[in-house]
Amino acid sequence: MSLLFETLNKIEPLDEEAMRKARERQDQLTKPAGSLGVLEDISVKLAGITGNVINEINKKTVVVMAADHGVTEEGVSAYPKEVTPQMVLNFVRGGAAINVLARHAGAEVVVVDIGVDAPINSPGVIQQKVRSGTANFAKMPAMGRDEAVRALEIGIEIAYQQIDNGTSLLATGDMGIGNTTPSSAILRVLTGRSIDEVVGRGTGIDDKSLKVKKAVIEKAIDLLKPNMDDPIDVLSKVGGLEIGGIAGLMIGAAARRVPVIIDGFISGAAALIASRISPQSIDYMIASHVSVEPGHRIMLEELGLKPMLHMNMRLGEGTGAVLAMNMVEAATKIIKEMATFAEAGVSEKETVLD
Amino acid sequence: MSLLFETLNKIEPLDEEAMRKARERQDQLTKPAGSLGVLEDISVKLAGITGNVINEINKKTVVVMAADHGVTEEGVSAYPKEVTPQMVLNFVRGGAAINVLARHAGAEVVVVDIGVDAPINSPGVIQQKVRSGTANFAKMPAMGRDEAVRALEIGIEIAYQQIDNGTSLLATGDMGIGNTTPSSAILRVLTGRSIDEVVGRGTGIDDKSLKVKKAVIEKAIDLLKPNMDDPIDVLSKVGGLEIGGIAGLMIGAAARRVPVIIDGFISGAAALIASRISPQSIDYMIASHVSVEPGHRIMLEELGLKPMLHMNMRLGEGTGAVLAMNMVEAATKIIKEMATFAEAGVSEKETVLD
Repeated sequence: MSLLFETLNKIEPLDEEAMRKARERQDQLTKPAGSLGVLEDISVKLAGITGNVINEINKKTVVVMAADHGVTEEGVSAYPKEVTPQMVLNFVRGGAAINVLARHAGAEVVVVDIGVDAPINSPGVIQQKVRSGTANFAKMPAMGRDEAVRALEIGIEIAYQQIDNGTSLLATGDMGIGNTTPSSAILRVLTGRSIDEVVGRGTGIDDKSLKVKKAVIEKAIDLLKPNMDDPIDVLSKVGGLEIGGIAGLMIGAAARRVPVIIDGFISGAAALIASRISPQSIDYMIASHVSVEPGHRIMLEELGLKPMLHMNMRLGEGTGAVLAMNMVEAATKIIKEMATFAEAGVSEKETVLD
Repeated sequence: MSLLFETLNKIEPLDEEAMRKARERQDQLTKPAGSLGVLEDISVKLAGITGNVINEINKKTVVVMAADHGVTEEGVSAYPKEVTPQMVLNFVRGGAAINVLARHAGAEVVVVDIGVDAPINSPGVIQQKVRSGTANFAKMPAMGRDEAVRALEIGIEIAYQQIDNGTSLLATGDMGIGNTTPSSAILRVLTGRSIDEVVGRGTGIDDKSLKVKKAVIEKAIDLLKPNMDDPIDVLSKVGGLEIGGIAGLMIGAAARRVPVIIDGFISGAAALIASRISPQSIDYMIASHVSVEPGHRIMLEELGLKPMLHMNMRLGEGTGAVLAMNMVEAATKIIKEMATFAEAGVSEKETVLD
């Protein structure tokens, strides 16, 4: 566990002094104090992350982790699992939603095969297959504890590589048919919320499959007894390889003091895992959208993060996260480019005497 | 009233056939049907507006209408009214939030003096002063009916000019110290909602001023008896010149079949006015953010529009609207650039037999 432990030891608190200075500057800009809301909050958070009041986003990267799920045998998804490798190739060819939105955002798409249950022979995909899909957790643990740690460490390594290549803003994405099922299971175990609150329709299952999905998760938790105080136990028993990889990416980003935008429900499950391994890592996360998947709201509340975008989306791939890149960049420009009251010769708020 | 009536007569329903085709194409793209939510809805709306399934945004323009309000005499704002012309000059010099965010969005800022109570001598500002600020509507109508119509027609003319200059996406913005007071008054009259629901703290007034603001609005409505079935009567008695200008811009955009993104509380009041003059004009509006100002939610519900951005903002100027431009462009790229299931060789959803 050395890379994981080493990395966790590197995660430090935000720079309070830089945050204070950023807030001070925001209050001098030609607008009522606080009136730009989340844009101001993001600029303050970025100051805390980097230690600088003024930040520029150089290179933006969305990392899409792909893996398969043995639990699809139980009939929990509307799509056949062949779609996972098919979509990975779609990512490489640039035809998927994440490609379109990443191009729009000026971000690079990095695709990682961390556990697809089919050979992926493409130079456009980073090969880090821990195993060919998880086991069916309705019957046995999804993966071994060593495999869960390996998935986390791959995420850390990918974060380090991308940051070494110049990335100053990361976003998370996922591809894996069936992966709302492990995400709901993680949410159920780590928060104790009811099965009806944590399970949704994923890509669009009918009432019958929804019942099956709930029963499968309850059965798995009964059978495997994941320990809610041991996030790696939860990840290995009812999780997924891409979820572990994304959690590792978040931990690696925090260790290197780089902000990471979290996408929807799958990334939310990964963020929950990361936050239980390292509560401090939450400070380096920026929430993007709130998914149609009902459990996503619960995840964000649990993390104490507020989503900016209400787009009624439920696609994954990192699509919500890359849309939010534009807002993060807007925040960096506001604090950098706006005139102060003094510079613009604008009168400040009248002092009100009570 | 000839320009106004002429323009209203030109507003036609959306192109249902183009919308059907856009929905059909969205369902062929490599994603679960509907999973991109608002991005899909926008692409369908744009198809209805332009008649084309594939749309490109060429030139984007945010029109910032500036005017003063006699009602500031009553102590309803945290800022002195000198700030209106000071901020207009800040817009011209490029130091305000709207300038920063418009540059970020690649949009042009067009500033219109439609009623600032100070001479504005800058070639960077379109001069269309209807009068030097409204009258104090706590004592008399804010403006004459002819002035309200003139404000609407100026908005129409500006929309036409910008569209003639190549703009294919408009956004609305406002500047006017005190303008949450007429906006709340309009909301109160047109919806009958209670004074506590429609009045907020604007740029940040204290409890005492909040009480004054509510009392002033109630007194004005009692005194002037604006007719809720006559939106121009409401605009003239308790409205504002920039609110009329923005409403006119929306009507002009609808007549020319160009989408218009509506900003926060002031633009929302203008949208309410426009919607009561021409219910069809709502089809050409795209909501952007939901403001901190509590009445804004009510306005959007009344219009039947859902905000995409929850940024906790309350600045105006068009800042929320220009942030949403990025989302509208993302929507145009999704429908244009994504691969179909057939093109990408991706399996479609399994047919479920019940």
